[in-house]
Amino acid sequence: MISDLEQAYSVNIKGMKKSAIRELLKLTQRPEIISFAGGLPAPESFPIEQLKEISSEVLENDGPAACQYGATEGVTELREILVDRYKKQGLNIELKNLVITTSSQQGLDLLAKIFINRGDKVICGLPSYLGGLGAFNSYGGEMIGIKFDQHGMRSDLLEEKLAELKTQGIKPKFIYIIPDFQNPAGITMPNFRRKEIIDIAKKYDILIVEDSPYREIRFEGEAQKTIFELDNSGHVILLGTFSKIFVPGFRIGWVVANEKIVDKFVTAKQSTDLCTPTLNQKIAHKYIEKGYFDQNLNEIIDQYHEKRDNMLKAFKEFMPEGVAWTEPEGGLFLFLTLPENMDAETLFKRAIEKNVAFVLGSVFHCDGSGKNTMRINFSYVSKEKATEGVKRLANAIKEEMKIA
Amino acid sequence: MISDLEQAYSVNIKGMKKSAIRELLKLTQRPEIISFAGGLPAPESFPIEQLKEISSEVLENDGPAACQYGATEGVTELREILVDRYKKQGLNIELKNLVITTSSQQGLDLLAKIFINRGDKVICGLPSYLGGLGAFNSYGGEMIGIKFDQHGMRSDLLEEKLAELKTQGIKPKFIYIIPDFQNPAGITMPNFRRKEIIDIAKKYDILIVEDSPYREIRFEGEAQKTIFELDNSGHVILLGTFSKIFVPGFRIGWVVANEKIVDKFVTAKQSTDLCTPTLNQKIAHKYIEKGYFDQNLNEIIDQYHEKRDNMLKAFKEFMPEGVAWTEPEGGLFLFLTLPENMDAETLFKRAIEKNVAFVLGSVFHCDGSGKNTMRINFSYVSKEKATEGVKRLANAIKEEMKIA
Repeated sequence: MISDLEQAYSVNIKGMKKSAIRELLKLTQRPEIISFAGGLPAPESFPIEQLKEISSEVLENDGPAACQYGATEGVTELREILVDRYKKQGLNIELKNLVITTSSQQGLDLLAKIFINRGDKVICGLPSYLGGLGAFNSYGGEMIGIKFDQHGMRSDLLEEKLAELKTQGIKPKFIYIIPDFQNPAGITMPNFRRKEIIDIAKKYDILIVEDSPYREIRFEGEAQKTIFELDNSGHVILLGTFSKIFVPGFRIGWVVANEKIVDKFVTAKQSTDLCTPTLNQKIAHKYIEKGYFDQNLNEIIDQYHEKRDNMLKAFKEFMPEGVAWTEPEGGLFLFLTLPENMDAETLFKRAIEKNVAFVLGSVFHCDGSGKNTMRINFSYVSKEKATEGVKRLANAIKEEMKIA
Repeated sequence: MISDLEQAYSVNIKGMKKSAIRELLKLTQRPEIISFAGGLPAPESFPIEQLKEISSEVLENDGPAACQYGATEGVTELREILVDRYKKQGLNIELKNLVITTSSQQGLDLLAKIFINRGDKVICGLPSYLGGLGAFNSYGGEMIGIKFDQHGMRSDLLEEKLAELKTQGIKPKFIYIIPDFQNPAGITMPNFRRKEIIDIAKKYDILIVEDSPYREIRFEGEAQKTIFELDNSGHVILLGTFSKIFVPGFRIGWVVANEKIVDKFVTAKQSTDLCTPTLNQKIAHKYIEKGYFDQNLNEIIDQYHEKRDNMLKAFKEFMPEGVAWTEPEGGLFLFLTLPENMDAETLFKRAIEKNVAFVLGSVFHCDGSGKNTMRINFSYVSKEKATEGVKRLANAIKEEMKIA
């Protein structure tokens, strides 16, 4: 081994921490623990039988191509069917506007690779998806957090911050937004707020990154338009994924953007993994083409809707006064806020003793705030377990309240 | 769209070019063209029937886990079976020394992310695999090329260069070597040269990266030991992949290294794609476990052996005097050298007119040399087409010789 390994590492990796969530998940995999920590889809939502059918068909009819290297842009028929879906939703895009990525996380990584120089600023929400923050940080991006109200990122604070930065000659690279059923907050940004943010982004000449993994999992209320569609001027980079609406184990995501930007994603992707697995893309295409996707999506929505309702019911029943939570109209997460003087990290230890786990809200806050918050996933565990888990969590909170 | 998009890009992406090979491949996909350009495995080598069988079994018996997120390190049973294989070959490693990557190209990307700061030097061969150079370049790595003799990278020139750099206070981050059936040169480095290079690396306290995608495809001659095994002191990072010995469309590679370094790969991978596709890993594991891997590897070796013999026969028959080529003992490529005054790029246009394609050797030379060289792939096209393609290529060379 070389004598100075620690020095040999790049500044990039020196600044990276292992994902708090993924490390935590390892601790919470004991079978007796009811975990609200991960962001895992329900295993019962996976279309195993249909996948058996389709994988056989794809290998039978298109085997050599499914096993071979594919184009960096992605398998054409999958790109086409995704573009068609977006067009039907109202997006004004063509094939050249969409590139397949090996998971949406790769989309975030490539985004950072394309735009971020060490020290560049990125605007994000307080809170924001940890994997996004991690990807931006891994290229030396510095996050500036904007607080939320019940509609998501506050546009007044955003404008204030951008004006302040402008006086310092600083122009952030992009504004990172998860508008639908935000991870971790569970909040959906209404159209009016989306428009305000687009206007501000245009005024300050800054790109918006719309990270949209949960959009199609809506239980109730009216679907808001994508920021991409509301903008319709190439100001927005939209990230999508199959992970929550089909299967995460295929690692297929995509990026929709102005063709010049898509071209940069393709260039950056070439040296990153050459192409996304071909077989998986071909299976995903058939899954949509055969109508299974839409059929099963409705089942996923129904499942998670029931699970959310069950979870909210348990919260109302068991949580002590002083605890607040968001009531998401869709997605996989809700966000819980403890009284200000309480620390979720101390609570976490007590919760683990009671065999229930969650994720600390503070890890989603780039400024280290949110110490009295936590993210609760409701998609993974069964309703029965969820009720029991909420009971345990409420007991841990009550005990902690007596001490605090 | 923002007003200064071109300025908004990172220095990383500004320095990246689209892969010359992959862009070229698009041009050479006309059906009338016989292409020696790609590095594609033969489609007839893909075990379609076995994949149908195994994918059904995995989905049947292990479906929910195969569709779910997996550990960043990779699926344990696949890591175990790979570690076992390496142990049988003589490598002194354990589970903690191996991490699965989404293709070996991701291994190269993560390697660069972990070690390279903008302006850092990397030692590579003249020539070297373009995807490696591209990955290092994408993080601002600056390549220093060392010339080859018939045994690969010249150790005398390597030592000379490292001594010179040391007087300048420069320590390269690693020495990048493809020791077996090198891409593009088709040369295998003998054990004695490997040892020389290990000794030099230790003397100058520099890591060695052993990129080893072709190692198992040996037609004849004696297998040389991996540099990893010869070193046995944690000085070497070994990269492997299924792309040439199973299927490339699964995008599964791996990295073997000291556990501290593996831990950095895991950290870097978390923000890059969270995990490699689970289903693919589980299928690959079963494919080895059932004995199909070894069985089919022998068939691949036989196929490519025949194709290489056929190619060499055609070269001897058709190539004019003054043209030289390597005679690889395995792998997918041989390297052709034209007379010094000839330019492979001019020849390329003439070759395309004659419906035959290759890759310019110069793209593999980080210093822009090798203008009279080309890489020839022999794994992909059929023997009949290869013979015809060599004839066309020889005619193009003869015509070019008359003009030159």
